[in-house]
Amino acid sequence: MRPVTLLTDYGTTDEFAGVLHAVIARIAPDARVIDLGHGIRRQDVLHGAMVLARTLPYAPAGVHVAVVDPGVGGPRRAVALRTAEEERLLVGPDNGVLIPASARFGGVAEAVEISASPWRLEPVSATFHGRDLFAPVAARLAAGGSLAGAGEPLDPAELVALEFPRPEVGETVVATVARVDGFGNVALHAHAEDLAVAGLSAGDDVRVRPLPADPRASAAPGASARSIECAGLVARYGRTFADVGLGEAVLLVDSGGLAEVALNTGDAAAALCVAAGDRLELSRA
Amino acid sequence: MRPVTLLTDYGTTDEFAGVLHAVIARIAPDARVIDLGHGIRRQDVLHGAMVLARTLPYAPAGVHVAVVDPGVGGPRRAVALRTAEEERLLVGPDNGVLIPASARFGGVAEAVEISASPWRLEPVSATFHGRDLFAPVAARLAAGGSLAGAGEPLDPAELVALEFPRPEVGETVVATVARVDGFGNVALHAHAEDLAVAGLSAGDDVRVRPLPADPRASAAPGASARSIECAGLVARYGRTFADVGLGEAVLLVDSGGLAEVALNTGDAAAALCVAAGDRLELSRA
Amino acid sequence: MRPVTLLTDYGTTDEFAGVLHAVIARIAPDARVIDLGHGIRRQDVLHGAMVLARTLPYAPAGVHVAVVDPGVGGPRRAVALRTAEEERLLVGPDNGVLIPASARFGGVAEAVEISASPWRLEPVSATFHGRDLFAPVAARLAAGGSLAGAGEPLDPAELVALEFPRPEVGETVVATVARVDGFGNVALHAHAEDLAVAGLSAGDDVRVRPLPADPRASAAPGASARSIECAGLVARYGRTFADVGLGEAVLLVDSGGLAEVALNTGDAAAALCVAAGDRLELSRA
Repeated sequence: MRPVTLLTDYGTTDEFAGVLHAVIARIAPDARVIDLGHGIRRQDVLHGAMVLARTLPYAPAGVHVAVVDPGVGGPRRAVALRTAEEERLLVGPDNGVLIPASARFGGVAEAVEISASPWRLEPVSATFHGRDLFAPVAARLAAGGSLAGAGEPLDPAELVALEFPRPEVGETVVATVARVDGFGNVALHAHAEDLAVAGLSAGDDVRVRPLPADPRASAAPGASARSIECAGLVARYGRTFADVGLGEAVLLVDSGGLAEVALNTGDAAAALCVAAGDRLELSRA
Repeated sequence: MRPVTLLTDYGTTDEFAGVLHAVIARIAPDARVIDLGHGIRRQDVLHGAMVLARTLPYAPAGVHVAVVDPGVGGPRRAVALRTAEEERLLVGPDNGVLIPASARFGGVAEAVEISASPWRLEPVSATFHGRDLFAPVAARLAAGGSLAGAGEPLDPAELVALEFPRPEVGETVVATVARVDGFGNVALHAHAEDLAVAGLSAGDDVRVRPLPADPRASAAPGASARSIECAGLVARYGRTFADVGLGEAVLLVDSGGLAEVALNTGDAAAALCVAAGDRLELSRA
Repeated sequence: MRPVTLLTDYGTTDEFAGVLHAVIARIAPDARVIDLGHGIRRQDVLHGAMVLARTLPYAPAGVHVAVVDPGVGGPRRAVALRTAEEERLLVGPDNGVLIPASARFGGVAEAVEISASPWRLEPVSATFHGRDLFAPVAARLAAGGSLAGAGEPLDPAELVALEFPRPEVGETVVATVARVDGFGNVALHAHAEDLAVAGLSAGDDVRVRPLPADPRASAAPGASARSIECAGLVARYGRTFADVGLGEAVLLVDSGGLAEVALNTGDAAAALCVAAGDRLELSRA
């Protein structure tokens, strides 16, 4: 019996995540089901893809459901994938949310389209494919079902692609906010190497200036639309929160490898007036 | 070993739901415990009853705890019920929260009053019957205990009844908001048949106008008291969110059979300025 | 296989708690993992210690992880403890968060420093010891590992201590707000005996007046800094919420033994304008 992991934007206020558990328990009563989380920003596929990619390497190989699905009920495909390494099975909408996580395991070796899966719950609703499609398919896979039994073969090359925004790196680094966590820490789509190219080193004081979201970017539904009102701050390039005084700012590499701006026991996102989708400019102070 | 499901208004900020798990794990270490959710509107019995009724058909038959309990510690009874079909066991306060879900399984075939159950944790607190009464009774039932062992027999006809608000249907439909979900979708206490009686058909443009909560209704503790400030909107009667453009409004039948007003990737409740307990008037545009 | 319980300030929006589950499932696939909760006020060690102490007696003896860790990555120790009674194993930062709970089980009989535990995940990040240190150590302990194998011996007398604020008791009781729960109930660091010393008895009307947080106290990072704007209220000293009318105030002893001010189906914290860390003065009305 393979373990099942769940990652969605359903939140914890409604019963939606609970219903996934219920459906899986009926079909695969002995499967272990792990909530990776249900707090992805509503309908923000990019956020879901980022969290899935950084989380899956810590989970046992199994069946991994990810549902961030603004196109539910429309023409978008529903898919199940097998990764080249570790034979992990990923289940969700074909909107890119599964792709970066798959890349962590050698990419997609096999794919099936499951919209008309024989394992779906009939009648399939037009608005809750997590319940009627993704959960029952995942449960049958957890119970030993084969990917081929879940649906129709699909060329992995036809899957919808997704790439994370790349930083602009020169004398400064301009990077997109990947997420603000519940502590107010601001993780960026940028890595230690990007900081190094711009000449930023551990111990440096770094000027952090908020910029609005890139107007050329195709905004995710959840992207921030508000203007930036804050002047920015200076952060020490360190290793952990406690490298600076209480309330002071630190630039560090977070536990998933992303550059992150944080305040020691404070809320950096509030201080910078930014949300996911906005950008930060980093430069030597 | 029967599975146990939990549905409460405890929220996820406090440890209350965790304590239910802890108590059950001591008594029935091998029982599978499924959180249907803990986000019922605080003390809104009607909301809890609605969510339990729409969720239970997807859960394996077992022991189903629901705690929305503004009368805890007072004279209200605590009960455990057996449904006529599938022999599901429901546990909670006798305030109606269990009744609509029981009706989905043929109604209540057997009932016991458990306030003085031999399985309760002593001393029973006056404010946390979930911990001291409902969880231990559920755990003993999960481990194979009989309903008769849980308490004193009670005539099912004496259980507190609960009915969902019915829409007023004529040339328009005036229906009560059953819930606003985390996406801002507004589900109504109305069904596809009610819309048909008012002459509304798929493809129609439908005017949606917010009205204050019915002043004659006995307001649930959680019912909205604010006045309605928004002018309303026009929604297409469709099947799913993607049937209209981004940000546009759709009227659909939700995954639990209720009429629902939604914005494609937007927040319909904010646009309509409504919360659970308010009413919407639907008419041909 | 010992059960594992988790209590953190990670919240449920991010994947952090889910990652703990993932890590444990890889190492101890058969361990039962119980979320006591993830809603501790961010970085409020006192709050975490209070909740752990009141919750653990209801949980089966096992491995108990608590992570409220403003000093992560800094010089603070990471520890695993064995209690004198029931042989419970507690795992977390050495900042006092584990101490009051240990005291409920006879105190700490054995302690080890686990910062360099052979069971840690390498490389240990500087910001997420829950994932890299506490979860893997807990999983190995759950699977039968010995405390001695988890790290280096540590004299329990060297552990960082933590005590709850004591009320000032005279003609009045001045007590610190221990927590505001999701219903708005205000629990105090004061017990029934403290009320009795001040001459307050069941049935009395009690004046409740909000005071700012004690400026002499070393404020927890999460402590409230706002001024108190409300005039207070009069509460009946009762046993449960329903002892007073709807919307009226009651003073009672909560399910964990703390004095608590509540409004029947209302929000006492909003009425009193207080948050954890503020103080209330109780006196005969």
